[in-house]
Amino acid sequence: MGGDHGPPVTIPAALGFLERDPSARVVLVGLPEVVDEAVARHGGRLGERLRACHASEVVGMDEPPSAALRTKKDSSMRVAINLVKSGEAQAAVSAGNTGALMAISRFVLKTLPGIDRPAIATVLPTMKGHTYILDLGANVDCSPEHLLQFGIMGSMLAAALEHKERPSVGLLNIGEEEIKGNEVVKQASELLRASGLNFHGNVEGDDIYKGTTDVVVCDGFVGNVALKTSEGLAQMLATFLRREFGRNIFTRISGLVAMPALRAFKKRVDHRCYNGASLLGLRGVVVKSHGSADAYAFERALARAADAVRNRLIERISQRMAPAEAPA
Amino acid sequence: MGGDHGPPVTIPAALGFLERDPSARVVLVGLPEVVDEAVARHGGRLGERLRACHASEVVGMDEPPSAALRTKKDSSMRVAINLVKSGEAQAAVSAGNTGALMAISRFVLKTLPGIDRPAIATVLPTMKGHTYILDLGANVDCSPEHLLQFGIMGSMLAAALEHKERPSVGLLNIGEEEIKGNEVVKQASELLRASGLNFHGNVEGDDIYKGTTDVVVCDGFVGNVALKTSEGLAQMLATFLRREFGRNIFTRISGLVAMPALRAFKKRVDHRCYNGASLLGLRGVVVKSHGSADAYAFERALARAADAVRNRLIERISQRMAPAEAPA
Repeated sequence: MGGDHGPPVTIPAALGFLERDPSARVVLVGLPEVVDEAVARHGGRLGERLRACHASEVVGMDEPPSAALRTKKDSSMRVAINLVKSGEAQAAVSAGNTGALMAISRFVLKTLPGIDRPAIATVLPTMKGHTYILDLGANVDCSPEHLLQFGIMGSMLAAALEHKERPSVGLLNIGEEEIKGNEVVKQASELLRASGLNFHGNVEGDDIYKGTTDVVVCDGFVGNVALKTSEGLAQMLATFLRREFGRNIFTRISGLVAMPALRAFKKRVDHRCYNGASLLGLRGVVVKSHGSADAYAFERALARAADAVRNRLIERISQRMAPAEAPA
Repeated sequence: MGGDHGPPVTIPAALGFLERDPSARVVLVGLPEVVDEAVARHGGRLGERLRACHASEVVGMDEPPSAALRTKKDSSMRVAINLVKSGEAQAAVSAGNTGALMAISRFVLKTLPGIDRPAIATVLPTMKGHTYILDLGANVDCSPEHLLQFGIMGSMLAAALEHKERPSVGLLNIGEEEIKGNEVVKQASELLRASGLNFHGNVEGDDIYKGTTDVVVCDGFVGNVALKTSEGLAQMLATFLRREFGRNIFTRISGLVAMPALRAFKKRVDHRCYNGASLLGLRGVVVKSHGSADAYAFERALARAADAVRNRLIERISQRMAPAEAPA
């Protein structure tokens, strides 16, 4: 029930999701008075497919994750993750505090065997289709082994959600001749090459949107900067485009004429379609919606979680990690 | 005379630059037969304002910088940097191999007192104007002190080229609550805070294009990824926009109607206007043009170099570093 907008976004999203996915069920977790009232207001009815599960606390968007983990044992986030742990739910979706969601998920669900650290992955539109990129900020200092694990998890995520048997994996690096990346990246490259994954080799920043590989692996600092920089650039370009079409009566009319093409363009790169970052490496499916998501975007995050469950994401990662662990 | 296109781009750019900057002079450095022939072909004439300086070798675009430095003592790049060293030229501009340009510049010109490592800086368009970002790939592993030096150099660059007395400086970081950046960034933040620069604090990737600060400081790996990712995204969006307007006869006509607004938009974010990355921290002005620059873009790089010289970039950095060095 979190995020910047709360129930006015999440409840309509849940109702829409249930309508479009007839075999799905949703458990709404939150403060009793808030959940029940919001369901009624949006014309929903609690029943077998839409249950409510009450929690007495809420994790604030700016609350330190360690505090949320230690002190709020009955937060909606914690209760939702507990439902995944107990098997009552197959996945948890939240638009709340990312750090708290990661900390609670990791504490309650634990990581899968062979995974040292969970990572955050998202999907981006590219010239050719989609690319999955991880990590996006859960891990700032990564060892080569961590990057290898990200490669495996990303590959399994792309396999599950894109139905590709052997997704290609690229390691994000820089192109300066002299340097070709730091030591960690060099060693990670060797590990990935020997991993049996479909490793393409190094890729550079522009390869993300060229769609050179199905998966792009990087540490959380670099991935977070790449993603946020992209958001900033896209916002600036959208603002400039609007401004030029709004400049005077002639440009405004020309904008109306160009509306079908501009709308098609907008739809093509609509970030709302790509909402729902996966917390990977956990013993359960956890999806983080953007805090500012609207109902459409939040419904996409719910659908992504359902997709991951149906396509056995967790089993895929476990199975892929098993042989890697065997020789140890 | 390097880059992907060579003299067909650089000679017209030099001629255009001389026309628009009546007090400037240009020395063309390259293979004698190539330079003289190209000047004649483009209707230029060698004389006082346009001199030729001959070199017998050329650094290849993919040549390892160390090899270019060791074995090609008479490369056009080396000869051009030598002219800066001897004072015959006030700046060198090249569209060639970045790594080689950096290695040769560093070897021949040396770094300024107090600067451990030169950095590469470029300017980007933002919602509010311009932002200077560095490093873009010269330094992959940076210490907090290096980031401080980048802050100082970037600040002086923005002061010189944007005529701002105290440009604001941001340190690129990530926003995850739990983490807030790695150790190097945390320590760099303290150094910048104590530096006397107009330090804004941490910024995130989207702040680059929001124009939150005049200068954004980061290590070369992160900066390179941010820049290349931006290039990739901009290219993808441009392609999608063209594709939607080219879809059928109606969208094509609507595109013609919308042309003035689309052209104004394009002009506003024309990457060619931002061509010319500064190699900062050297005892001389060296500007690197994008390898694929056209004549317009290369002329912008020449103008940027002239601007840096006229606004005493090197003296500004030296003066700013002097007190920082004094207590040592």
